[in-house]
Amino acid sequence: MTMTTPHLLVDPTKVEANIARLDNHITALGSTLRPHVKTAKSVDVARLLFHGGTGPITVSTLHEAEEFAAHGFTDIVYAVGIAPDKLDRVRALRARGVDLVVLLDSVDQAHRTSEANVPALIEVDCDGHRGGVTPDDPALPAIAAVLGDTLRGVLTHAGESYYCYTVEALVAAAEHERATAVAAAETLRAKGFPCPVVSIGSTPTAHATRDLTGVTEVRAGNYVFFDLVMAGIGVCTLDDLALSVVTTVIGHREDKGWILTDAGWMATSRDRGTAAQPTDQGYGLVCDVDGTPIPDLLMTAASQEHGVLSTRTGSPLPDLPVGTKLRILPNHACATAAQHTHYHLTTTTTTWPRLNGW
Amino acid sequence: MTMTTPHLLVDPTKVEANIARLDNHITALGSTLRPHVKTAKSVDVARLLFHGGTGPITVSTLHEAEEFAAHGFTDIVYAVGIAPDKLDRVRALRARGVDLVVLLDSVDQAHRTSEANVPALIEVDCDGHRGGVTPDDPALPAIAAVLGDTLRGVLTHAGESYYCYTVEALVAAAEHERATAVAAAETLRAKGFPCPVVSIGSTPTAHATRDLTGVTEVRAGNYVFFDLVMAGIGVCTLDDLALSVVTTVIGHREDKGWILTDAGWMATSRDRGTAAQPTDQGYGLVCDVDGTPIPDLLMTAASQEHGVLSTRTGSPLPDLPVGTKLRILPNHACATAAQHTHYHLTTTTTTWPRLNGW
Repeated sequence: MTMTTPHLLVDPTKVEANIARLDNHITALGSTLRPHVKTAKSVDVARLLFHGGTGPITVSTLHEAEEFAAHGFTDIVYAVGIAPDKLDRVRALRARGVDLVVLLDSVDQAHRTSEANVPALIEVDCDGHRGGVTPDDPALPAIAAVLGDTLRGVLTHAGESYYCYTVEALVAAAEHERATAVAAAETLRAKGFPCPVVSIGSTPTAHATRDLTGVTEVRAGNYVFFDLVMAGIGVCTLDDLALSVVTTVIGHREDKGWILTDAGWMATSRDRGTAAQPTDQGYGLVCDVDGTPIPDLLMTAASQEHGVLSTRTGSPLPDLPVGTKLRILPNHACATAAQHTHYHLTTTTTTWPRLNGW
Repeated sequence: MTMTTPHLLVDPTKVEANIARLDNHITALGSTLRPHVKTAKSVDVARLLFHGGTGPITVSTLHEAEEFAAHGFTDIVYAVGIAPDKLDRVRALRARGVDLVVLLDSVDQAHRTSEANVPALIEVDCDGHRGGVTPDDPALPAIAAVLGDTLRGVLTHAGESYYCYTVEALVAAAEHERATAVAAAETLRAKGFPCPVVSIGSTPTAHATRDLTGVTEVRAGNYVFFDLVMAGIGVCTLDDLALSVVTTVIGHREDKGWILTDAGWMATSRDRGTAAQPTDQGYGLVCDVDGTPIPDLLMTAASQEHGVLSTRTGSPLPDLPVGTKLRILPNHACATAAQHTHYHLTTTTTTWPRLNGW
């Protein structure tokens, strides 16, 4: 039976190369990785991260924590601010021997987690991207005081590094992320609070960093697949992109300069992350079925189950008859993968399941 | 155990009212509905469409066709241009007694479907939105000639009606959709081709139409739930919106005017459909847990598992402590629902599964 389109395709050789590159970089700087599994949400991909074994991971949902724990991953940071009524699920996992640590940035939450005897990291804000307290905020020691011996350390995420477009800007963002986390840790230590964990990371800063002094672990997730947003930032090349959506040509509108495909936003997601970049890649770059980019051809529009391909410069459309298979390189691997339940592989007929849901 | 957030919530009473309203309208105009099940992708919602029974449906994927067929739905139009290598799955369903009809707009495809003895509708373009041939295109009779007795009729979709913002514009789009489909059917009949089916529809035009002369069936899907895009067009009111995402407050950034929640784009989708409308609703309108909108409060930004709420006008934030449950009314129900595997209900503790995938 022909494999139906659209479907998600992963090149495991590229995944392994992407993993080795960052592993080597972080190891050379004297720190260790705690990969974020939220991009692939795949136990099979996580096994590649740890050469077939398990290791420390970061998760974005308790469902991930539960599923990875069921597969032997017992050292887990849940890196989204904790909602108090999720603590029952956290405690249930901890009771099974999983060292699941939560994140928070308020005295309120700290009272709830310490009452539940759940260890926590304090979220530190390094660039105004999301939540967290700054190192000089009086809330930082106040939270630590409430946490007492459930305080594990500090965590920050340079989310604004996604908007850096030069090596200098990326290196500066990485150094600022490091310095902010270390400053927060030093603030706590100066007041007598132990702060064993200093956790930083984002895919751009993890690749750009040149110094990890004082950092105990680096988190990154997207790099297993990379995507057009990362290529646009300059963190990877197009050739590093390990994830694509396979689609079939289903029609043509020569009058409009369109080729229609069976991969709409249901297959690619609505993510338009490159719209904010110097080069807008539409809904994705179009490659032939073997993964070689077709010059000038983009996925420029999407409805639920229809993609529209057209040329960036208005050059003539390539000859791609109905039935032609293509690959779309996505803007944002996390979002595109989330639209699917399985990964197909370039190397074997095996599929790898994904964990969706909460 | 507390129901975890984020999750999808449906008010079945509103769904039933939305269904009855369009049923009554189309029946009064002398036609019948062939609802599109691509929005809810739920057998339970489809049962509400047919008062507990089954009936004619439209699908966007063969996976929907297979799953609905397994639940007794045997009269199905697959309304996405057919890729030839999907015909094996189509034939397998037809061999089980399912009257599954496909869509196409080229002589190429017609050769493939007629060789496979699969009945087809010819896609007609009424507004340049996507695929299809115009009624005066010589391709129309040429395709019909290839189809021979596998020709079922014509189908059009006024996709551009999503960009109509006045009653007059919607009524005109509806009439144009009807007139185009009927003209295509008349063109075929004048050349001696039978054209039993004249299928039109979109949620905006189905509600706006005042005349269905010559139309044998109307397709619409989104109306079971409605959403902010439809409310922005004026097809429904906010009170008709039957779908929301339930979320929990997980933090505050008073300095930025932000409330942080645990519903990011993974829960709402990246759909920003209202960005093109006169009133941009961000990632959605925020309601209290009972569904009453909180004045001026929007979901204005999203990362994977974080939502950012802020006020439209910069008015002070309401007091919503960590742990507060809220509902987000989505831009685009089809896209938001696609991020989830189940619907929770306002009326019972039952959940309704969704069919995702292809």
